[in-house]
Amino acid sequence: MKRVYMDHAAATPVRKEVIEAMLPYFDEHFGNPSTVYDMGSKIKHVIEEQRAKVAKLVGAKAEEIIFTSSGAEANNLAVKGLALARQKKGKHIIISAVEHHSVLNSARFLERMDFEVTFLPVDEYGLVDPKRLSQAIRPETTLVSIMHANNEIGTIEPISELSTICRERGVVFHADAVATVGNIPVDVSELNVDLLSLSGVSLDAPKGVGALYFRDNLRLMPLIHGGIQERGRRGGTENVPAIVGLGNASELAAKELTDKANHVRELRNLLVAGIHERIEQVKHTGHPVKRLPGHASFCIEAIEGEALLFMLNQEGIYANTGSACASKALKTSPVLVAIGIRPDLAQGSIVFTLNSSNTVAEVEYVLEKLPLAVEKLRSFSPIWRKETAVTF
Amino acid sequence: MKRVYMDHAAATPVRKEVIEAMLPYFDEHFGNPSTVYDMGSKIKHVIEEQRAKVAKLVGAKAEEIIFTSSGAEANNLAVKGLALARQKKGKHIIISAVEHHSVLNSARFLERMDFEVTFLPVDEYGLVDPKRLSQAIRPETTLVSIMHANNEIGTIEPISELSTICRERGVVFHADAVATVGNIPVDVSELNVDLLSLSGVSLDAPKGVGALYFRDNLRLMPLIHGGIQERGRRGGTENVPAIVGLGNASELAAKELTDKANHVRELRNLLVAGIHERIEQVKHTGHPVKRLPGHASFCIEAIEGEALLFMLNQEGIYANTGSACASKALKTSPVLVAIGIRPDLAQGSIVFTLNSSNTVAEVEYVLEKLPLAVEKLRSFSPIWRKETAVTF
Repeated sequence: MKRVYMDHAAATPVRKEVIEAMLPYFDEHFGNPSTVYDMGSKIKHVIEEQRAKVAKLVGAKAEEIIFTSSGAEANNLAVKGLALARQKKGKHIIISAVEHHSVLNSARFLERMDFEVTFLPVDEYGLVDPKRLSQAIRPETTLVSIMHANNEIGTIEPISELSTICRERGVVFHADAVATVGNIPVDVSELNVDLLSLSGVSLDAPKGVGALYFRDNLRLMPLIHGGIQERGRRGGTENVPAIVGLGNASELAAKELTDKANHVRELRNLLVAGIHERIEQVKHTGHPVKRLPGHASFCIEAIEGEALLFMLNQEGIYANTGSACASKALKTSPVLVAIGIRPDLAQGSIVFTLNSSNTVAEVEYVLEKLPLAVEKLRSFSPIWRKETAVTF
Repeated sequence: MKRVYMDHAAATPVRKEVIEAMLPYFDEHFGNPSTVYDMGSKIKHVIEEQRAKVAKLVGAKAEEIIFTSSGAEANNLAVKGLALARQKKGKHIIISAVEHHSVLNSARFLERMDFEVTFLPVDEYGLVDPKRLSQAIRPETTLVSIMHANNEIGTIEPISELSTICRERGVVFHADAVATVGNIPVDVSELNVDLLSLSGVSLDAPKGVGALYFRDNLRLMPLIHGGIQERGRRGGTENVPAIVGLGNASELAAKELTDKANHVRELRNLLVAGIHERIEQVKHTGHPVKRLPGHASFCIEAIEGEALLFMLNQEGIYANTGSACASKALKTSPVLVAIGIRPDLAQGSIVFTLNSSNTVAEVEYVLEKLPLAVEKLRSFSPIWRKETAVTF
């Protein structure tokens, strides 16, 4: 059966050349980088090379990169690590209402540790208002964490504007850039951030690896305590093959970023226009312009998103209905609630995330099958049959 | 050049058949297990199969296994996750003086969170005394964490005796079994433990994966907060290829454990006897009998362990001088201090850890080269020239 995969925010296949680069580190070069003999020091050197490649992709210095086991771990290390290291200064942090679960639940953990958390609302496009951020900062605020782009609605936040406010007020700024690194240019100096999380998911790198950028000598409480790995900031033997995968994928991504963005933007525009043309009562979610180039998200009236996914699945089409991490946990997406989508409409969420491998033919295939699936589901829906003209 | 690798506690090459099993999960089966469509649910099923294999190796139920990114992460999750989840009951925990850095530094973190930590001393062999444990337990004690075997001195602790005391007193017991799983039989029921950490290092599994066994419905504060992965106990997309590696390696280890133990025990005995025969003023560290079968550890008088490693390295021999995680961090090993080794003698620590791939010829090669290296280093040593007959 034909497979049209458009859920690249959830997972991507690792590129052949990246797998090739990783392979020798499973057996031939298997040494522990913390050992003092030649096998160990060679591997240590390889890790430092990868650190430099990842750093280069985001405009950082190599020594400002910590490898983690995922973007989620990087987010946990940033939020909890910074807040706990600075708790003598104050116990108040600010996050947006549309953060990823790894930031949101790290903040909830801090609440249990007697921190106060302010959840900044967003507008109908998912944008954080710099004025509201400014008003929310208190003398005891130590950290603000706002994601670079949201993986459910694709909206790109005005990070440099937000971070500059924090810089002026002496508050550390963290951006979860898991959805942007590999999709759009990300530069820590331009963004003016102190901490930035990334993962391999938009780089076609392997699972099991992420990284945290931290500016200069920012103090962080380790999340995984242990030995001297990552200069004492993250214990546990380094996942060498995965780190090699991330490094190589970062190098390739840096070269191909513009071409990839142009390619997926064109396909995305075709997809969005085609869906509006072929399906009635569809709301395009997120910002119309300030959004990830390969990201298309909708709420479809009188549709249950998961049912739609199953029907598309039968046609070989793979999409998502929100964040993969939350798929089975939540009935209504907090992100869609935050942008003011009615709960019943939020049920009809569908998200397409594209990458370089997608083609015009695949988009046309989706534009053929999606309207049929929607029509079929709506034919079963008592709501749809009752309300023939719902307005948004 | 000949390579004789005897540092298997630090790292092992991944077995060919395990790499083969992992490969399809980098590209062919790359889906995110949290997604609801067929690609995702198939991967989810694969993960559950691996969970069952790891569970079987340690006599647990599949649902009692949480996958982590390392043994260190499993130790952090056990110690911090249990202590923080139970802090309303009490803020006192007990660990031994010879724990791995990931347990030790997790306990130090809890001290900063206003917990009290008792460090149990060990005897000259590194053994924890059950009576002292019993005396150290207080009404507010929530957790005892004692390692199954120590990776620097090879000593195997009397876990079931220690854990039974805790069970009777209503205290949760955690064993760091990173050094034992894959080397000796480990059964969570026989050991009578509530929590047990393991990693792939003694299973010839890949880096970047570990697991925590937790009995039944024990409450744990997640270490990595995030989505619904690992039933809400560990956020972040699952490292599918590494989990497949750990599962397959666990299955192989279960079959081969007895043969492996017999093989490495025989080689280890040859090595220990040969070293005592050929080198004077050598102290065999750890327990003579209650120890890991493939583990030989010594302190050599008037020798600097790291210098010895470099000389052996030049002959193609790879050994360690303590725990790989601490190699560059510490001048004197806390483990050797805890068993009462004089600081200057502790400098001369050397550790050989064997696995199935080692041979009699390799042991003979080490027995040829090691005495020459020791002799050479001692010829430079003013201490050795002065004290011709130091007694232990």
